[in-house]
Amino acid sequence: MTLLDTASRDAATLETTPTRYIEGRAARFAYRRLGPSTGTPLVLLQHFSGNIDAWDPAVVNALAADRPVIAFDNAGVGRSTGQTPDNVEAMARDAVDFINSLGLSKVDLLGFSLGGCVAQQIASEHGALVRKLILVGTAPKGGEEHLLMVLQQAFSQTDAPDPRLPLFFTTSDPSRSSGLAFLKRTKVRKDDRDTDNGNAVTDPQAKALITWCATPDPDHEILRAIRQPVLVVSGSHDTMLPADNAYVMFKHLSNAQLALYPDSGHGALFQHHEMFVSHVRTFLDAEAIAA
Amino acid sequence: MTLLDTASRDAATLETTPTRYIEGRAARFAYRRLGPSTGTPLVLLQHFSGNIDAWDPAVVNALAADRPVIAFDNAGVGRSTGQTPDNVEAMARDAVDFINSLGLSKVDLLGFSLGGCVAQQIASEHGALVRKLILVGTAPKGGEEHLLMVLQQAFSQTDAPDPRLPLFFTTSDPSRSSGLAFLKRTKVRKDDRDTDNGNAVTDPQAKALITWCATPDPDHEILRAIRQPVLVVSGSHDTMLPADNAYVMFKHLSNAQLALYPDSGHGALFQHHEMFVSHVRTFLDAEAIAA
Repeated sequence: MTLLDTASRDAATLETTPTRYIEGRAARFAYRRLGPSTGTPLVLLQHFSGNIDAWDPAVVNALAADRPVIAFDNAGVGRSTGQTPDNVEAMARDAVDFINSLGLSKVDLLGFSLGGCVAQQIASEHGALVRKLILVGTAPKGGEEHLLMVLQQAFSQTDAPDPRLPLFFTTSDPSRSSGLAFLKRTKVRKDDRDTDNGNAVTDPQAKALITWCATPDPDHEILRAIRQPVLVVSGSHDTMLPADNAYVMFKHLSNAQLALYPDSGHGALFQHHEMFVSHVRTFLDAEAIAA
Repeated sequence: MTLLDTASRDAATLETTPTRYIEGRAARFAYRRLGPSTGTPLVLLQHFSGNIDAWDPAVVNALAADRPVIAFDNAGVGRSTGQTPDNVEAMARDAVDFINSLGLSKVDLLGFSLGGCVAQQIASEHGALVRKLILVGTAPKGGEEHLLMVLQQAFSQTDAPDPRLPLFFTTSDPSRSSGLAFLKRTKVRKDDRDTDNGNAVTDPQAKALITWCATPDPDHEILRAIRQPVLVVSGSHDTMLPADNAYVMFKHLSNAQLALYPDSGHGALFQHHEMFVSHVRTFLDAEAIAA
């Protein structure tokens, strides 16, 4: 079960590769694995309410061109069994359980939004497991969030084709048109799509994210415990988790670089996917720099 | 005089290519031109006290691999004639005079430190001339500077092999060792080196930089007048022009991306030269995004 099938991996994409399953201690995890069989795998940690199919194929497939990339559903999400916990610490334990189940001893992490909080928690506790860390559209413990307000606004826009359009993109024409292109890309896969488990996932996840931001960490203990190289990314106009969070993380991490993108919201990595992939590749391929 | 010799340009480097001269209205300008003969030229605007030979060959040669790159001495600097003005506005006029003399109607600008102030001034006034803008280790008008204090400290370190070591790099071992490698690279060229004109350059330049930062621009009129795409870069621990300046510029420019680098000072672009070149290339090669 811990050995991965490497057949026809080169041709596989997020839209075409079959969903796989692996037994962990806390859950049976659904995942997809792309890219070459060698190299440090990049494990993706998903945003609030998202499952495997909420990742942008333009980002995932491009990253998988030169490294193994693994997207998965954490406990309770999509087609993974188990319960979605209501706190970041337990989500981090479940994610580590998944990584261990695959027999991986060294990974890179890309955490987006809530997934970025989980990624910080994992990196701060597992110095040997995590090689490098990418934090996108996220907040430090005690950071600034406007989750409920922004969600309420987004879901009140009943004419929007998808709540992710107002949530992830700005109101400018170029951002909005990037958003429509993104939504289209996420809907290409027709069969073997992931499930949306509704409030059973979003209620505990919202509590986890809000609690993370409401818990003061005045000395930035979590950030200071992260010794790995970190790439911090945010959109200029992220309404849910503002870019100030990214600047705070950059300043208090021991070895971080910061990339902020123009005219973009929470989904900056999908809007500016070519730039984002280029930055991630440059970051992950760089020789280790001083911690 | 306005047509450039393209012979053996591919093989040329900053260290080997001959210095050329061109008559402008305000001065006879010294310059070096590298890279292919086609494509939008990238014009480099140098830091306080620097001449053509103060650029890092690792940065300039790598950028010239796929675009024309032009380094020059502004009026009064190095082997350019004329007088170094004591204000950014006049430096911008001289730089535009140089660009016009070469017959160039569209350029990209890379401005470092004082050169970044000059670049902002040019871009704000010449929307048609400047395609894209890269601002490194610089400040907006009214920004924060600690020039005199930091210079005084640097020049009091009589055991430093070069004042640029404490000025451009941090005290960490990796940064310091990057600094020594940088200094070595800038000293490879032996013949046809540029001159250092001492106080005739540094006195008016210091006044220009300090005045730029001491002149309030509470509504960020200069930044708001810049409609081009901008890449803003700074080191995490720039002591002369702190990274907060970069974050302010990013927030008030209409179309900017920000890149901040770890464990680095004013010379972040030289310390992290591979990353910097990769970011610049991605930025300059990107399709135009919304202004």
